[in-house]
Amino acid sequence: MLINCVAYQEGKKLSDITVEAISDYIQIPGCFVWVALREPAPDELTVMQEEFSLHELAVEDAQRGHQRPKIEEYGDSLFVVVRTVELDGEELHVGELDIFVADNYVLSVRNNVNRGFLGVRARAEREPQLLSKGSSFVLYALMDAVVDRYFPVVDMLESELEKIEDRIFIAGSQRDNIERLYELKRKVLVLRHAVAPMLDAVGKLHGGRVPGFCWDTQEYFRDVHDHLQRINGALDTIRDTIGTAIQVNLSMVAIDEGEVNKRLAAWAAIFAVVTAFAGIYGMNFDHMPELRWRYGYPIAVGGMVAVAGYLYYRFKKSGWL
Amino acid sequence: MLINCVAYQEGKKLSDITVEAISDYIQIPGCFVWVALREPAPDELTVMQEEFSLHELAVEDAQRGHQRPKIEEYGDSLFVVVRTVELDGEELHVGELDIFVADNYVLSVRNNVNRGFLGVRARAEREPQLLSKGSSFVLYALMDAVVDRYFPVVDMLESELEKIEDRIFIAGSQRDNIERLYELKRKVLVLRHAVAPMLDAVGKLHGGRVPGFCWDTQEYFRDVHDHLQRINGALDTIRDTIGTAIQVNLSMVAIDEGEVNKRLAAWAAIFAVVTAFAGIYGMNFDHMPELRWRYGYPIAVGGMVAVAGYLYYRFKKSGWL
Amino acid sequence: MLINCVAYQEGKKLSDITVEAISDYIQIPGCFVWVALREPAPDELTVMQEEFSLHELAVEDAQRGHQRPKIEEYGDSLFVVVRTVELDGEELHVGELDIFVADNYVLSVRNNVNRGFLGVRARAEREPQLLSKGSSFVLYALMDAVVDRYFPVVDMLESELEKIEDRIFIAGSQRDNIERLYELKRKVLVLRHAVAPMLDAVGKLHGGRVPGFCWDTQEYFRDVHDHLQRINGALDTIRDTIGTAIQVNLSMVAIDEGEVNKRLAAWAAIFAVVTAFAGIYGMNFDHMPELRWRYGYPIAVGGMVAVAGYLYYRFKKSGWL
Amino acid sequence: MLINCVAYQEGKKLSDITVEAISDYIQIPGCFVWVALREPAPDELTVMQEEFSLHELAVEDAQRGHQRPKIEEYGDSLFVVVRTVELDGEELHVGELDIFVADNYVLSVRNNVNRGFLGVRARAEREPQLLSKGSSFVLYALMDAVVDRYFPVVDMLESELEKIEDRIFIAGSQRDNIERLYELKRKVLVLRHAVAPMLDAVGKLHGGRVPGFCWDTQEYFRDVHDHLQRINGALDTIRDTIGTAIQVNLSMVAIDEGEVNKRLAAWAAIFAVVTAFAGIYGMNFDHMPELRWRYGYPIAVGGMVAVAGYLYYRFKKSGWL
Amino acid sequence: MLINCVAYQEGKKLSDITVEAISDYIQIPGCFVWVALREPAPDELTVMQEEFSLHELAVEDAQRGHQRPKIEEYGDSLFVVVRTVELDGEELHVGELDIFVADNYVLSVRNNVNRGFLGVRARAEREPQLLSKGSSFVLYALMDAVVDRYFPVVDMLESELEKIEDRIFIAGSQRDNIERLYELKRKVLVLRHAVAPMLDAVGKLHGGRVPGFCWDTQEYFRDVHDHLQRINGALDTIRDTIGTAIQVNLSMVAIDEGEVNKRLAAWAAIFAVVTAFAGIYGMNFDHMPELRWRYGYPIAVGGMVAVAGYLYYRFKKSGWL
Repeated sequence: MLINCVAYQEGKKLSDITVEAISDYIQIPGCFVWVALREPAPDELTVMQEEFSLHELAVEDAQRGHQRPKIEEYGDSLFVVVRTVELDGEELHVGELDIFVADNYVLSVRNNVNRGFLGVRARAEREPQLLSKGSSFVLYALMDAVVDRYFPVVDMLESELEKIEDRIFIAGSQRDNIERLYELKRKVLVLRHAVAPMLDAVGKLHGGRVPGFCWDTQEYFRDVHDHLQRINGALDTIRDTIGTAIQVNLSMVAIDEGEVNKRLAAWAAIFAVVTAFAGIYGMNFDHMPELRWRYGYPIAVGGMVAVAGYLYYRFKKSGWL
Repeated sequence: MLINCVAYQEGKKLSDITVEAISDYIQIPGCFVWVALREPAPDELTVMQEEFSLHELAVEDAQRGHQRPKIEEYGDSLFVVVRTVELDGEELHVGELDIFVADNYVLSVRNNVNRGFLGVRARAEREPQLLSKGSSFVLYALMDAVVDRYFPVVDMLESELEKIEDRIFIAGSQRDNIERLYELKRKVLVLRHAVAPMLDAVGKLHGGRVPGFCWDTQEYFRDVHDHLQRINGALDTIRDTIGTAIQVNLSMVAIDEGEVNKRLAAWAAIFAVVTAFAGIYGMNFDHMPELRWRYGYPIAVGGMVAVAGYLYYRFKKSGWL
Repeated sequence: MLINCVAYQEGKKLSDITVEAISDYIQIPGCFVWVALREPAPDELTVMQEEFSLHELAVEDAQRGHQRPKIEEYGDSLFVVVRTVELDGEELHVGELDIFVADNYVLSVRNNVNRGFLGVRARAEREPQLLSKGSSFVLYALMDAVVDRYFPVVDMLESELEKIEDRIFIAGSQRDNIERLYELKRKVLVLRHAVAPMLDAVGKLHGGRVPGFCWDTQEYFRDVHDHLQRINGALDTIRDTIGTAIQVNLSMVAIDEGEVNKRLAAWAAIFAVVTAFAGIYGMNFDHMPELRWRYGYPIAVGGMVAVAGYLYYRFKKSGWL
Repeated sequence: MLINCVAYQEGKKLSDITVEAISDYIQIPGCFVWVALREPAPDELTVMQEEFSLHELAVEDAQRGHQRPKIEEYGDSLFVVVRTVELDGEELHVGELDIFVADNYVLSVRNNVNRGFLGVRARAEREPQLLSKGSSFVLYALMDAVVDRYFPVVDMLESELEKIEDRIFIAGSQRDNIERLYELKRKVLVLRHAVAPMLDAVGKLHGGRVPGFCWDTQEYFRDVHDHLQRINGALDTIRDTIGTAIQVNLSMVAIDEGEVNKRLAAWAAIFAVVTAFAGIYGMNFDHMPELRWRYGYPIAVGGMVAVAGYLYYRFKKSGWL
Repeated sequence: MLINCVAYQEGKKLSDITVEAISDYIQIPGCFVWVALREPAPDELTVMQEEFSLHELAVEDAQRGHQRPKIEEYGDSLFVVVRTVELDGEELHVGELDIFVADNYVLSVRNNVNRGFLGVRARAEREPQLLSKGSSFVLYALMDAVVDRYFPVVDMLESELEKIEDRIFIAGSQRDNIERLYELKRKVLVLRHAVAPMLDAVGKLHGGRVPGFCWDTQEYFRDVHDHLQRINGALDTIRDTIGTAIQVNLSMVAIDEGEVNKRLAAWAAIFAVVTAFAGIYGMNFDHMPELRWRYGYPIAVGGMVAVAGYLYYRFKKSGWL
């Protein structure tokens, strides 16, 4: 579905144009065309391929979707794939934004992305001095928007981790913790798969051998790169911490179990002693003088209580109870 | 076994030719010969070696088989080894495709591969504008076919992992889970051994110092490289997740065990108390006034039940039962 | 908040100047201006941006804060972000120092940093031969001060680790140890996030392609780099040791538990034997000759004590008790 | 001990020569001398050092032995150290082969190697067209022979791993498995120490800046390199699998233990119930009407059996028994 | 403290000279001065700084000590820091050797090192042909001496590891093993911190861009580098093995515990059966015909023994006892 198709010159909007006019406008020097598509039908892409003379392999990738983030040069044009990661309640929703860009055009194709990029266009049009840097600034603005949307996801992951950490040393929460840690790890991997390849790719847009039309906006791409590194660093920390937390959780399970065992042992000991003594006085020997004593019974029971009490005191003191 | 032996010129099939004619056809400018062998006998390879003037070491490798994926330059020709990984029910079936390729010929040797590459030839012949790029396009088409067949394997591994994940927090399934995780890890390693060295090798066919006759098809090889990176990334995620899942599984075992222990401890306590009390009233002291009471027995039993009930309530409340 | 704003020439302080005069002074050859801000309001930064012609993206970063440590070139100027890590009791307090620096100016912006950098200025002014190296020496002095403040933090972490190590093989301290190890790991990660990216960044200020005005102070930046490597090495060791300590702690839990189990088993065996024997002599058969013996009772009890004593001796010898 | 000392020219054996004649023969253009020593006495090496003008440090290394595999250039000559790994029953036997090689000589020194390299010389002499490539071909042939002998070791390690894997999920074999896994890991490390540094070293003999006299045999060294990579890959897989297997083994121990615990708990529960009931009917209250019933006893015993049976059925159903 | 201060020319000792004469001697072409200090007072270093014109930052580092091993270039001179690791009974004693070296001088400063380097000087003076290579040979000789002293430490660590390995599968030694493994790991880290950075540093003294006056001694530094790599490889193996050993130890704890549990379960079952039967015959029902039988008692006891014996046999057979 076509969202918009606009021609710009020297940072200002010339006019909305028809798809058929694209190939004419991209001939005008200093002019570039910015087209936005959403979940395009195959024939829409074919039209674009013709208007912009896009490379077959790039168009194929955009059609099939589910690409890993990358930036590929085809002659003087770039084919950029980035992944959007949006929060959908507790879940992560992954979409894809494909951008075909050259000196004189930007074609963005969004697939499975909930929140659009109209705001990016509006902001760009409000700042003609930046938009006059040309199509590479639009590329930057789109990538920057995608990356900015990663930050709330990272925040969510970090706050989820903190919630788990608050409960990690609380006995009885281990089963829940381990489930949540596993789920968190899964989400971290999802975000990481969006960020890590993009980090490599964006690194090629500044500093070294940069495509010609991106030369003036290098510092902007470095900024995107820097944001991605921050996110990547945060993800590494979360991953590392999850790993440690899983180990710690296992330790806590073992420690708790050890304490239950000790308690079991202590009570078992106390009752085993009582039962053994009771058993002895329940034997049927004819000659058991204690059994005949007037105060034999209370003495016996008192003795049992005393022994049990002593054991209880000892276990209490050594921390088993 | 010879499958076919065809000469092509400017993207079109000239004719099927005899093996003996190969050395003549590869002299014709703009013409290339594409030969396909299957589990060749040593002497078949020797004939090919003579017709194509192949390097002794490369032929030796093709004969012995079980090579790791690689791309080696011998003068102006390349020797390419890739591994096929096919699904055979639940099992992975690993085969090998060796490709000798130069400006004027492609010789593919397939060993232990179930599904052939006739479709690749058919598709190439249907698109003369692509086939006219020459032997390097054939090389691309073969590699692309091999890599495309990895995707269903990755899908199978991912869905197997998901099935295990669905059961990972279910008590009692740990023994089964660990066996399946171990088996899954084994399969991941098999695929990884096909993919990882090929990733390194294909990287040499685009971007940097590329062999002359592959210059025009660089973007195609980059596409193969990109597919391999996606697969590799997916494998890394599966490996990472298996590692975590094994740890989590161990934690779940420990947690389950801890709960069994608690339950055991609770019931043991309840019965130990009853037994101890019964033991006391089974003692044979002459002077145990309770024993003479009319309602001594029901009171005693009632007391036992009450204590047992109280313990049961306490254990229930604290989650031990 | 403006802290100071001073012009220097040939290593000597010219005079305190007003903010408005900055743009004049930075025109004077051989003169540089050193401005220090603390938690600046947005408009303070805007003024600075105009006076020094700072790049928009750098100013934005300084305003938003929470950047990862980095050194970015904008034309002939550098934008440096470093993190301060201060001890606040047991906790780590993380702040940020942003430095805009070029041949003719240094602008430092400190955010969330408790201890100021006045000492750096005082020391620099006391050593004119060093200050005469220009703004890059000021940059070095500031970074050196930040890095020097990491050392007490590393010392604290190392001594905390030693304290835990002293208790790691002491039975009963495992729960406490694991909590402290987890907390320590968290702190190590905090410091590491300040150090590791700075290490990469400072590496660009010596040895290779160094910004022009830093050429003469390369050896000083190498010194900072070397300090950072020492800290990084120390952190790696702590991390590695924490990992091992967590594993060891789990082993200690298991060993302790095993010993408790053995003890439980031993006592259970002793009392089970006594109870079984007592049970036998408590049976109500008519014909149990031992029950009629004069010394049956003492013999029985003696036998029980003997068996129990023998078991006790055996268990003691084999280390179970 | 001198094994042989032969001069070759244009791929053909000239004659066996005396040690004293070496320095003469290596002056003849197109001629090279191939000397083989076994566990040489210090003075034998000293003679060789003089005849070939070997570098003092290289000779020292050869004398002391226990070097790590390496290839060092001394001017126009190479000093190569490789380790042989031979199967000696179940054990690995590690030896060392030091090779001094230049355009006009090859001196091989074998230490602690059971199986000699006479076959290498015989094969080389049988293929004059290869031997005519000169001393670098001899170097290749020796290294190839050493590397070929690694393969059976790898096969042995892999088959040992498979044997362990077959038993890893069998209850009761864990102690044995862990011992064998540990032993296997040790052997893998031994082989790895032979392979990994050699991999780095051989990498320098092809592709990049290659010593002059090895230029024509590059493709052969690449072949050795490729074999080493295969071995290294196989070792990595074994290591990785051992790591997982150790984890899995621990899980299996825990799972088995959990099942024993459950069984223990189940039987304990059944007998505890019986004992408690028996204890109750063993109490000595005067007024226990059941005791007087004609069928009290069979009813009581029947009740006990019924309860025990019910528990047994329940435990059986829930998989505890 | 000054140890010696000697001038050398063409590999021969000229004479012991006074500190004040240093600056004169280092002017003489082909002459170099070798000064050795031990735990120098600050003013001793200041004198040296003046005589040799040392760089302020290097002197500061030498004064403060506790540097990480490194080699820094200051103009035409080098500042080298290496760590000595000496055995002090079971403990490791870490010291530091700082070396300032240029074409015409060597100044070695030893701190906290027990065993001196007089032997190095004696040996150097005995071999004038080597000493005539100049100050870089002295640098090599000092570094070689330091590295040679690492070998006995590595041997000690390896033999300690072997001792632990001998006991790792012996039941009951786990607590001791884990303590020793932890301690061993600590020592490995100490040595590693001396070796790893030195490895990086020494790598810069051969092969690539080497400081001018070290050009002729490159092969010597490569030898040191090679020794360091051997040590580093050995340390990696020890670390890897310790990691596995800790895991194995945990498994052994779990296996031992499992066996204790089984034994406990078996004995508990045997006695529980006996107690339950005894309890049944201890019931006070009026009508229990067995109790009246003449041989009731021996039959009952016999039955109990038979059941217990059967259970014992079963448990023995299944390996629980």
